[in-house]
Amino acid sequence: MIELPWEKTGDQPLVLAFGGNALLPDPDDPAAAEQRAVEFAEALLLLLPEHAGLVLVHGNGPQVGSLLLRVEATRDEIAAEPLDVLVAQTQGSIGYLLARALRNSLLAAGREVEVATVVTQVVVDPNDPAMLNPTKPVGPFYSDDKGTALAESQGWDTVEIPGRGIRRVVPSPLPKDVIELHTIADSAGHGHLMVAGGGGGIPVRRDEDGTLHGVEAVIDKDRTAALLAEALDAGGFIILTEVGHASRSFGTPEEEPIYSMTADEADVLLAAGEFPPGSMGPKIESCAQYARALGRPALISSVDALPDALEGRDGTWITP
Amino acid sequence: MIELPWEKTGDQPLVLAFGGNALLPDPDDPAAAEQRAVEFAEALLLLLPEHAGLVLVHGNGPQVGSLLLRVEATRDEIAAEPLDVLVAQTQGSIGYLLARALRNSLLAAGREVEVATVVTQVVVDPNDPAMLNPTKPVGPFYSDDKGTALAESQGWDTVEIPGRGIRRVVPSPLPKDVIELHTIADSAGHGHLMVAGGGGGIPVRRDEDGTLHGVEAVIDKDRTAALLAEALDAGGFIILTEVGHASRSFGTPEEEPIYSMTADEADVLLAAGEFPPGSMGPKIESCAQYARALGRPALISSVDALPDALEGRDGTWITP
Repeated sequence: MIELPWEKTGDQPLVLAFGGNALLPDPDDPAAAEQRAVEFAEALLLLLPEHAGLVLVHGNGPQVGSLLLRVEATRDEIAAEPLDVLVAQTQGSIGYLLARALRNSLLAAGREVEVATVVTQVVVDPNDPAMLNPTKPVGPFYSDDKGTALAESQGWDTVEIPGRGIRRVVPSPLPKDVIELHTIADSAGHGHLMVAGGGGGIPVRRDEDGTLHGVEAVIDKDRTAALLAEALDAGGFIILTEVGHASRSFGTPEEEPIYSMTADEADVLLAAGEFPPGSMGPKIESCAQYARALGRPALISSVDALPDALEGRDGTWITP
Repeated sequence: MIELPWEKTGDQPLVLAFGGNALLPDPDDPAAAEQRAVEFAEALLLLLPEHAGLVLVHGNGPQVGSLLLRVEATRDEIAAEPLDVLVAQTQGSIGYLLARALRNSLLAAGREVEVATVVTQVVVDPNDPAMLNPTKPVGPFYSDDKGTALAESQGWDTVEIPGRGIRRVVPSPLPKDVIELHTIADSAGHGHLMVAGGGGGIPVRRDEDGTLHGVEAVIDKDRTAALLAEALDAGGFIILTEVGHASRSFGTPEEEPIYSMTADEADVLLAAGEFPPGSMGPKIESCAQYARALGRPALISSVDALPDALEGRDGTWITP
C-alpha cells in the first residue's frame, strides 16, 4: 500500500462523499439498501484512520424522489411539506440506516467507534445566479395538463421532457456555510464518525440579522463535502461514485483513465468540457478546490475500486 | 422567581420533553407548525441555563401518522419502509424545524447558542413484555376488508375500533439504552442545545454480539427523556404537555390541581389509577424515576403555564 496523504496529517478528520445512487441502487427495496450500507461500511474500514474522525456526506436523489412521489399522491389529503423539509426527512432515514450499518460493521471488525448522524442545514446565497435559473429536476413526471396546473398553483418552475412529460425543476446553488459545523467539528475531532450534510444539506438562507429560512433547492453533495473538508482542515477528501476513476473522452473509443492530475490540469480539462456538469464535473471541481485550499491530494473512486485506488492501481488523485 | 433546582447544579444539562401534539397542533399546516416552534423557543429561553446545555426530546405522533398515511396511499408503487425508518424521517424533519426555530429565537434574544439535532437510536429489549402485547395504534383507520388483508399480508397486529374501522397496533417497549449518548453528552456538556431522542427514539434491538437491528415499535418519549436525564446526570428534568399541571380526579367535579408531590406520593396516586396509562401516567412515572435516581425535583407543565410554574404558581413538581 502506498503512503496515504492522511497518514501524514495526524489527527485531522477525513471527509468522504458518496452518492445516494451508489449507495442505494434500489429505492424500492429497503433490504437491498441495508445490504449496500453494510458493503459500504466494509469499504470504509480501509479508510478510517486509527485516531482521527471521519465525516460522511451522502447523496439522497432516489430517496427524495420517493418522498416527492408520495407527497404528490396525497396532496389533496395531507399538506405538502416544502422541499427543504423533505431533504431533512431523508437525512433522518438515510442517516439512521447508514449509522446503524456502519456501527455494526465497525464493531464486527473489532472497532468500537461512536457513529452519529447530525441533521445539517447549509446556507445558500439567495443572490446565487443558480437561484434565478432552476435546472435540477426533482420528483415525478406529470402529464402536460397536470404539470401545467401544478406549475401555476404551486408557483413551480418546470421543464418539459419530450415524450415523458413535465417535471419540476429547482435551483442548485453553491453551499456557503454549514450551520452545525461546530457540532460536526467537535465530534470528528474526538475521533468519531459523523454522518452530516446528507443530500448536500438542508438549504437555508440567512437574513442580515442572522435569521434562517428554508429554501426550496437542492445542493450538490460533493460541493458541500468540499466545503466541510476545507472548514474542518480535513486530512483527506475522498469522493466515492459509480466509476473507479475519472476518464478523458469518457464513453468514446478514445476513453483513457486519469489516475492522477494536478488541480491546474483539472481546470484545463474542465474548460475543455471533458467532465459533464451534472456528474463528474462537480466532483473534479470539488477535489481541485480542496487540493488547492489545503495543499493535499483528493481522491475520486468507487466502493468496489477503493482497495485498488488506495494501493495506487485505480482511482483519480487530484493533487495541489 | 423561586430558586430553580438546576441553579444549584452548576453546568449539568437540563433535559426537556414535550409532545408532538403540544408543539405541532396542526399537522396539515406546516406554517402553523413553524409558528408554534417559535413560541416554544421563546418559552425555552426561560429555561436555558447560562452555561449548561439542554437536551430536547420531542414527540412525533401526528407527523409519523402523516407519513404512514402516505406510505399506505402509495404501497403499490413504492415499497413501504418499516416503522423505525419512518420514525427516523420524523427525527430529521421535526429536528430541522425545531433547531432552526430555536436558533433563530435564541439569536433574536441575543444568545448565540449552537443548536443541533442528532438522529437517535434507542435500544429496547425484545423480551420486554410489551413486545408480546402490542397496544399502541399507529397510522390510518382501514375498512374491515382492507384491514384484515393488510394484517395478513404484512403480519400486523390490529385492533378493531367499533364504528371507525381497523387500525394497526405496535408494541411500546421501555427504552433501555441510547446509542448516540456519547455524542449527546459531549455536546450538551459544551453548553449546546441538542434535539435528540425525537419520537422517543428509533427503536432498535441489540444482539449478543452488539449488532443493532430495527424494531417496528414506538417508544414513549417521556420515558426516553427520563433515561437520557439519568444518563446525563441532568441538573433538571421538565416535561411540557397540554395541561399546566397534573390533577387528582382529572375531568371530574372534584378535580384538584397537584402543585407538588414526592415520588412516593406519586406512586400511591399511580396505583390508585389517578393518572391514565396512555397520557399523564408515563409522565408522572418518568418524573418520579428521575427524582429518585438523581435526588432532584422534576417538573410537569405546559408551554403557556411555564412562566408561572417557574415562579411556583403552576406546574407539578415531583420531589425525591
